[in-house]
Amino acid sequence: MMLINGAPAESIAATDRGLAYGDGVFRTLCAQNGEPRHWAEQYAKLAQDCAALNLPCPDQARLLSETREVARAHARSAVKIVVTRGSGVRGYAPPMPSTPTRIVVSTPHAMAPFAKTGIQVHVCRLRLGHQPALAGVKHLNRLENVLARAEWNDPAVAEGLLLDEQGLAIGGTMSNLFIVEDGTLITPILDRCGVAGVTRERVIALAAQSGWACRAEPVPLQRILDASEVFVVNSLIGLWPFVRLGRRTWAVGAVSIAMQQALEGEDAATD
Amino acid sequence: MMLINGAPAESIAATDRGLAYGDGVFRTLCAQNGEPRHWAEQYAKLAQDCAALNLPCPDQARLLSETREVARAHARSAVKIVVTRGSGVRGYAPPMPSTPTRIVVSTPHAMAPFAKTGIQVHVCRLRLGHQPALAGVKHLNRLENVLARAEWNDPAVAEGLLLDEQGLAIGGTMSNLFIVEDGTLITPILDRCGVAGVTRERVIALAAQSGWACRAEPVPLQRILDASEVFVVNSLIGLWPFVRLGRRTWAVGAVSIAMQQALEGEDAATD
Repeated sequence: MMLINGAPAESIAATDRGLAYGDGVFRTLCAQNGEPRHWAEQYAKLAQDCAALNLPCPDQARLLSETREVARAHARSAVKIVVTRGSGVRGYAPPMPSTPTRIVVSTPHAMAPFAKTGIQVHVCRLRLGHQPALAGVKHLNRLENVLARAEWNDPAVAEGLLLDEQGLAIGGTMSNLFIVEDGTLITPILDRCGVAGVTRERVIALAAQSGWACRAEPVPLQRILDASEVFVVNSLIGLWPFVRLGRRTWAVGAVSIAMQQALEGEDAATD
Repeated sequence: MMLINGAPAESIAATDRGLAYGDGVFRTLCAQNGEPRHWAEQYAKLAQDCAALNLPCPDQARLLSETREVARAHARSAVKIVVTRGSGVRGYAPPMPSTPTRIVVSTPHAMAPFAKTGIQVHVCRLRLGHQPALAGVKHLNRLENVLARAEWNDPAVAEGLLLDEQGLAIGGTMSNLFIVEDGTLITPILDRCGVAGVTRERVIALAAQSGWACRAEPVPLQRILDASEVFVVNSLIGLWPFVRLGRRTWAVGAVSIAMQQALEGEDAATD
């Protein structure tokens, strides 16, 4: 089910700047029985990303109401929220004031088995460029992710590992990355590229609550290969442990399982 | 006037990957009395950019017919052609096969006075990131251009100068750059960022025909300030000479005027 600016619809103006320039941001989140999970964190991140583009963020109460409306269509929904700068005349200059377009859409969400089995991961040849003005923001300029995801079509490979132009690991094509070293969690620094997701923030917060050290640091590929556990997270998949990357294999480890349970515990408490 | 996949329309599916990810390319060109200028070059560049994204390019005869149809709506048209990867299920993986969406739209095109008067230019604070996989391609991921263009709203400033993360000049926010040094034309190398436009190629070819040296080289900001003439080009504006950049001023120079006449001569010959 889809709502565009609050009304059932399936199309947008072809002059929308979201199409013309990728001038907008989005969120993807899980809803259970019509109720979005971790709404406060999702809305806060949406507002932060809108601010990065100097884009007016939709009113929270209205957006929550629309999110609940589309989420009711399925027992478990993947809800996508898109906010664009709306239509404008041709040219890069943002219209002043702009009238943002908001799209709220739900699809049925079936969990993949990878949370338990772990995943095989492809190391992407595409390297992420650096753009500090957009780093961390989940904006609509996602061609790097599209090109990286097009590098493989083996269904046994569930995710691709993205490195930046310096060879530092940044995350998965659709997920944030953590490695475990001597019981400490390390996640890449995302101040030059990558997307800083809500589940990444939740893992950092849960680690602090559980007394595990957790730091953002540069993560060269070798550091992943040397790590005792590696996993990726996002709001839809939850936590997927790595079990294979090239010739390196892992068993699903204790920290991954504990963090998965902590995330699922939070989810269950809010459902 | 707008045609979408050949039929009069004004909206696209909200699930289009052009909106979701900026997964597509575009062209902007000038048409006079219903006939697009430099069609062969424009189509060749569109095909090249589609190939960079592994996107099927629309058939040339069909696209030309649609371009003529929308261009007839105005004596002089700005025609925009957008090709996206079409709709798909959620997720970065490109649908196989994909069914591209093509949008062909015209608006009346009035020439600005800047070709004769020259332009005042803003040096953008935003620095372009490097992404060799997308450099030169006129794709729909244009947030850098949007952020750069939002840096000024003084209507006396007609263009912004974009530098890359190393401080090298790459072009204008919507145009390609040339400087003149001792009668030689220099244009930035575009293998790490920037858009390689059709008019840039025309200037390079016209220079060769006229016996002027023309090379692509790194252009630090100081090299612009030291140049005897500086200008930007694109298919809609033609050629705009710089007359002011910060405290540096120029008179409109002989090479700029000669190149402008050469471009206009080609245009007139094909109109």
